Formats: sequence, structure tokens, C-alpha cells
Amino acid sequence: MDNPDANWPRAEAPLRDAYARAGVDISAGNRAVERYRELTAGWKHPSQLDALGGFAGLFELPGDPTRALVASTDGVGTKTLIAAALRRYETVGADLVNHCVNDILASNATPLFFLDYLAMGKLDPDVAGAIVSGVQLACRAHSMALLGGETAEMPGMYDVEHFDLAGTIVGIVETARIPDRSRVRAGDAIVGLPGAGLHTNGYTLARALIARDEWAAYGDALLAEHPSYYRAVRAIEDVADVKAMAHITGGGLLENVPRTLPEDLKAIFEQSRWSVPPLLSELVRRGDLPHEERYRTFNMGIGFTLVTSTADAVKALQAVPEGKVVGWVEARGPDEPKVVVHPSRTA
Amino acid sequence: MDNPDANWPRAEAPLRDAYARAGVDISAGNRAVERYRELTAGWKHPSQLDALGGFAGLFELPGDPTRALVASTDGVGTKTLIAAALRRYETVGADLVNHCVNDILASNATPLFFLDYLAMGKLDPDVAGAIVSGVQLACRAHSMALLGGETAEMPGMYDVEHFDLAGTIVGIVETARIPDRSRVRAGDAIVGLPGAGLHTNGYTLARALIARDEWAAYGDALLAEHPSYYRAVRAIEDVADVKAMAHITGGGLLENVPRTLPEDLKAIFEQSRWSVPPLLSELVRRGDLPHEERYRTFNMGIGFTLVTSTADAVKALQAVPEGKVVGWVEARGPDEPKVVVHPSRTA
Repeated sequence: MDNPDANWPRAEAPLRDAYARAGVDISAGNRAVERYRELTAGWKHPSQLDALGGFAGLFELPGDPTRALVASTDGVGTKTLIAAALRRYETVGADLVNHCVNDILASNATPLFFLDYLAMGKLDPDVAGAIVSGVQLACRAHSMALLGGETAEMPGMYDVEHFDLAGTIVGIVETARIPDRSRVRAGDAIVGLPGAGLHTNGYTLARALIARDEWAAYGDALLAEHPSYYRAVRAIEDVADVKAMAHITGGGLLENVPRTLPEDLKAIFEQSRWSVPPLLSELVRRGDLPHEERYRTFNMGIGFTLVTSTADAVKALQAVPEGKVVGWVEARGPDEPKVVVHPSRTA
Repeated sequence: MDNPDANWPRAEAPLRDAYARAGVDISAGNRAVERYRELTAGWKHPSQLDALGGFAGLFELPGDPTRALVASTDGVGTKTLIAAALRRYETVGADLVNHCVNDILASNATPLFFLDYLAMGKLDPDVAGAIVSGVQLACRAHSMALLGGETAEMPGMYDVEHFDLAGTIVGIVETARIPDRSRVRAGDAIVGLPGAGLHTNGYTLARALIARDEWAAYGDALLAEHPSYYRAVRAIEDVADVKAMAHITGGGLLENVPRTLPEDLKAIFEQSRWSVPPLLSELVRRGDLPHEERYRTFNMGIGFTLVTSTADAVKALQAVPEGKVVGWVEARGPDEPKVVVHPSRTA
């Protein structure tokens, strides 16, 4: 889960039955966020800037109002439980780093450095080395320094074979280049970049729907790497004017896209325009998830969205062939939903 | 535990019997650090600067080589297990923030912003609110923004009543003001600032020596807040030339002070010059910890050290009356230890 509007932690998504059945109390998450908001109501640091969509926090660089630091902390959730059970430790580092890269990318930031937090019940140097190696390689792939970290062995807190992995990214952006959602217009196109699976959200629900003795069979799909959209977005920005971007994490298209649109506009998605990864279709089938729940829980195959003019969208797809125009922006009446997904006939 | 020389995670301290008995494998930690070092041997980001003592990572500000960002990630270890058992959630946030503040303070950095990571088995909004409230207040006490965070509910990973808490701090320093240990001279004084207890290190050992049914009786001592040394250090810097600083965390005086001294100098501490908090004396007694183990496991009552000339030390103590000259710097032969602690007769 990411930082919300007020840069506070939020629950993975609003109340939904399947998640509650899986043991995650989304309403408790929302109540916690309310507490956090009350706490911050009294004081805000003068250098703190509003962050579009709240995927990251923005802080004006001291002495240089033309630039801002952009930071985000995230974890990989209980994807680590599957990695631990299958003893496949190489990919969770990239999951973590790429998730964080995408979070600050929505504010157009360039990554500077990263710090990881690895907590284990029993510190196995081979396991820790494999995990941090993945973090390091993913940092290097973004020319980003792995500036520090913390490895904590905490018997009594974690089971012997369990581990938790979180991290913090810091990037930088010229304030003039922070996306401005007020520039979004009805008729604009929404370019989607393809997802690879669950990424780093929805694992508690997935673990409730796919039994542990099946994890090995679904290993590749369950552990598919959270993609970095950094290069694709930069390639699109080279040829197109990008007005808003959203990283589609917990909350799916329904909750992440509205964070980047003005109140009087809505997003219309046409699901026939992209394909849903087989793992997500299987989870939808097993959980008998209704339409809205699918698009609020999972990314459903779209990991990142960019809003451009229709003319620029054509250029964007030439620059990034894996991208697709997955929807468009329309005027929104006061009582209308901010996102509508038209289902595919075959979905 | 902090970042070591290469800004990599390290184990809390080298192999020691009491810790091993308590279930923390320090040699595994050291082996993990070796793996990490091998990983980084191949590539280092050109903006990454060497950090004195490795309490934090330093990154040259893009486009401004006169300044550096200083960052550190840390946790509060299994102090959270005691807080959870006693249902006292208000102070762990300050423990976390103050620990991180002190880590970047050793590089003379001024805090800019903080991000927290809170993971729970069961998300209780009251508990989460109390914990993050503590984080927020400690940030505000340092005029630092709480820029973001992540709250994760992870059933199956954490017990229902357990939580883990980590955080990342980012500060800034003028590169000319980064302490330079080559300026330390034989004869310099070491000013110590008093500790309040365990701070955020040694809790796995403490939990092995103080049974759970005694935690309530020892609650105030066990949960005593990790102090921030920010104001004291700034007050000393106003009147004295500070050559090196160390945050005394896991590894104690024996491992943290050498990180800030040249190879040809050693630190001599005279324990009669300060008092050991009663909780630490009790743990030493119960664990029958030999002299070296005490000073490698616990801070033993000194939370932060500053090296100044003897003349400046006098000014420092006038500015900060709670400080004490706890030792001095001497020439060191090639086979001599880098730290010697002369025990008090009454210790």
C-alpha cells in the first residue's frame, strides 16, 4: 500500500468481503488512516508539498525551491511468505525496489538512493544475501545507490523461516515537472502499461484462495516480478506531454486512477483493450469476485497509467509498443463514479 | 543496528555467548554482512560519499557538491514485544525517530523528513494511532516532516498482538561540516552524553534475562525512551570544535567509538566518571556478563560521544551540564585494542 493524499499510510483498499474473509480488516485500516489524519491536522512542515495522488511524499529542497525530494516507503506484503515457503529469494528485492520506483515516478521523480529493511526470525546469511542481492541489482538497474539498510534478527517476532522486507526510496524532481492534474481534459487518452500478476498487493487474499500445497505449481505466477515502469515512462515522456500518472497498486484502477484526476472528470476503461494475466483470472474465478471487487483488489493487468492527449497517445504507443490505450477521460457529474470499467465479453 | 562502513546492514555485534544463548546468531549476522560487501564490491554509485563511522549513508546532492543528503534506516528491534505485552504504545515512536536522528547527527546532519514502516498481525486503529502519534510527535520535536509511511496488516506473518516498527530518516549537511576523524589528536577529550537504558539495542538478550512475568515491574526501565542528542550536540557545537561523534548503539562503546577514530589512536574510558543505569547493572548481574561483553552489548550509560580538545571539552560541559568527560584519546600501537574501558571499583 502507498501513501494516501495526506502522505499517510492507508489500508490496502476499502472494505471488501473477500479480503475480510482472508483476515485483513480493511475498515480497521481506514480507521487507522483517520487517526493518522487527525494527528497531522495540527501541524505540517512548511517544506512539505502536496503530492499528486499521494503515491509519494514531496519535500522542497532546502535553499532551492525549483527542486523537490520525493520519497516513499513500502513493503512487499505477504508475498514474502510465498517466497519463503518456496525458498525463492532472488526476486522479492526487485519487487520492493520497482514498487518504490513506480511510486515516485508518478510524481515524475528520478531515483537517487534506496535503503532496505530486512527482518528475519532466524538470520540465514545465504537467504539474506540472496534477498539483498535482488535489492542491489534492482537499484543498479535504475542507477540508484543502495545507500544503507538494516538487517534485524528477531526471534520471537518472526517464525524461523519467515522474513519481512520493506524499503525507502528517495528521488528528485524539478518542481515545474511535477504532474499537474488540472491540465487533464475530457477526451484525453489513458495509456496503460501491462502488469505481470499481483505485483506486491493482494497476497493475503491470494493465499486464502490458493492453498499452500498449490504454491509450488503457481510459483512463477505468484512470484512474477513487480515491473519497473521507469524506462517506459521516460520513453513516453520523450515524445508525449504526460499530464498525470498513476501506479496501480492496492485499490486497483478504481482507487488509484481517481487520485490523479480533477473532481469533474472520470476515467472510462474498456477491458477488451488489454489482457488479464491468467493468475488474476484464476483468483477472480476461485474467489467468485464481483466486477467491482476485482478492480479494487487487483491491478487486473494494468500496472501503470498515463494521461495524454489522444494525439500524444499515438506517439506514446510508437515509443513503447507494449503500452495500450486502455481508456479515456470524460466529464463527470457530481454523483457519478470517478472510474468505470467496461468488462470484456470474454473476461 | 546501523549501517557499517560500507553502509550495509550489520549484525548487532560480534559473536558473544549471552546473545547466542538468547537466540541471536551474531556470526550469522557477520556472514550476512560479508555477503553484502561482496555484492557491493562490483559497483558503487558515483554520488555516494564515505560516511564517518557508517552510522548513515551520504549522497552528494545532485548539482550541488557543497551539500550531501544523509540517510539511515533503523528499527526498534524486539522492544516492540515488550511494548505490545504491556500495551504501552506511546513511546516506541520516539525510540525509532530519536535513534535515526542520532545516527545522522554523527555525520552532523540536520533532519529533513522521516518515513515510518509499521507492520502488524492485526491492525488495531487505536494501537496504530498511538504508535504513529509517537512517531509524529518526535518528528515535530525535531522540526522534521513525517513525509509518508506504510502500515501493513499481515496475518500469518505476525502474531495478532505483535507489531514491527522501522523507519527511515533523511537529513542534509554541508560537506565541509562532515566530521573528519583525521583531525582527532592524542590528548583529545571524549565527552559522553548520558543514556537512559537499553535504548533500542539488546532487547533479545534482555528478554532472555528478564522473564515475561517481570516485564510489568521493569516496564518503565525497559521502555525508557531512546534519547535524542540533537539539541545537546548543537549546543556543544555552538561553543566547541567537535572533531568526531559516535552514536552508541549495538556494539556499545567497544565497536561504535573506533569507527570515528584514526587507526593510530585509541579511546580510553574511565567508568567511574559516569553512572550505569540500574537496568543495565541488573542485566549484567543476571547474565553474569564479563567486562568486555557488557561494553559490547549495551551502551552502559553513554548514548553518544563527541571528541574535542580538552579546552573545548570544558566549554562543552558548560553548555551541556548533563555531559561528562568520560575518557580521552591516546596513541595506539599496532596490536593494541582501539577502546579500553577502565572499570569503576563499584561497578
